[in-house]
Amino acid sequence: MSGKSSIILYNYFRSSASYRVRLALHLKGLEFEYRPVHLLKEGGFQKKAEFATVNPMKHVPALVVDGFTVSESVAIIKYLDHLKPQPRLFPADPRAEASVLQICEMINSGIQPLQNLKVLGELDRLGVSKDDQKEWVLKWVRGGFEALETLLARTAGEKHCFGDVWTAADCFLMPQVFAAARFGFTPDAYPTIARIHAALEKDPAVIAAHPMNQVDTEK
Amino acid sequence: MSGKSSIILYNYFRSSASYRVRLALHLKGLEFEYRPVHLLKEGGFQKKAEFATVNPMKHVPALVVDGFTVSESVAIIKYLDHLKPQPRLFPADPRAEASVLQICEMINSGIQPLQNLKVLGELDRLGVSKDDQKEWVLKWVRGGFEALETLLARTAGEKHCFGDVWTAADCFLMPQVFAAARFGFTPDAYPTIARIHAALEKDPAVIAAHPMNQVDTEK
Repeated sequence: MSGKSSIILYNYFRSSASYRVRLALHLKGLEFEYRPVHLLKEGGFQKKAEFATVNPMKHVPALVVDGFTVSESVAIIKYLDHLKPQPRLFPADPRAEASVLQICEMINSGIQPLQNLKVLGELDRLGVSKDDQKEWVLKWVRGGFEALETLLARTAGEKHCFGDVWTAADCFLMPQVFAAARFGFTPDAYPTIARIHAALEKDPAVIAAHPMNQVDTEK
Repeated sequence: MSGKSSIILYNYFRSSASYRVRLALHLKGLEFEYRPVHLLKEGGFQKKAEFATVNPMKHVPALVVDGFTVSESVAIIKYLDHLKPQPRLFPADPRAEASVLQICEMINSGIQPLQNLKVLGELDRLGVSKDDQKEWVLKWVRGGFEALETLLARTAGEKHCFGDVWTAADCFLMPQVFAAARFGFTPDAYPTIARIHAALEKDPAVIAAHPMNQVDTEK
């Protein structure tokens, strides 16, 4: 590589996994080319052949750095830590890293997969009513937030999920709160989560990465 | 720490996330105390207060090393790499590590969360028939395996998911194939996955970690 890396991010404004990665990129001050992948128009651009080559899972985000392609937000953010170590989003200390990864995965595998568009589409197809779909989402969100609150009460500092520095855990928490809000959920009942969310929502990196502030944003 | 670490694994023979961690422990030759958490008896021991303190998400596995507790299989295996680096399950090279993590997450967040016991229980409650539940599982499994096959065809060696060494990707693939078999699924249509699975299923670490060979196994 000579000089600055070329970074392309395939993403969608509303996708919470995309938001996680945008937040990491903005925190690190890495410039990137924003390539919107519309998940709904024309049956979903993520399903078209051009994108399926980039990510065979046919979902966003996907990152391409100097010809190297990687998907899945945990893997992308871990890679960004190598590309630009400051601020380091996965701590160097093994136990701190394990705790941060645990928080990320509670959201990444414990909540988000059960509330995304394709899952709700499938519930629709099975005849589950819109009301029951909403209850389905809220069930997983409430269970996940209750567990997160318990864990974060042990690990959080004043403004962040783990101590008082930015970590990947914050990059997962903020988008999860945003995603749950679409179903009428607020984190008010979870004091640690509510405190962190209120402290971080005004941060310039959060504002820059926020779903409502992207080139492909639809109000 | 003086000398050998004390390692406790809370797990359940049939849980695929437990199987991933057992496999990592056996590959590294780490001795551990096996604490079975029965997910079905008495409404599920993972929901009882004693275990919820260990893991607020109320699911297995959870690992306790010299008083440090961590849950979520990706986080646990990453921590085990620090505890005993050989064999290293997440490669040191940043791009190799990212690719291995991507494969793990395709299973960890892309397939497994949609087919586990609590999700099927909730579909049951919503009146989704057993036949439709099976189709639900197979839909996510087939989509995930198709994507995995495409990616593994690029990354796999003769016997392993990434090159020809053990990585965490193998620790995720073997349990996913086992879990899908319960729904009548075989990887025969996916040549790379089928080749890796056939090569590894006779490995002593896989046999030692296999759900059918544990102290709490029920036939």
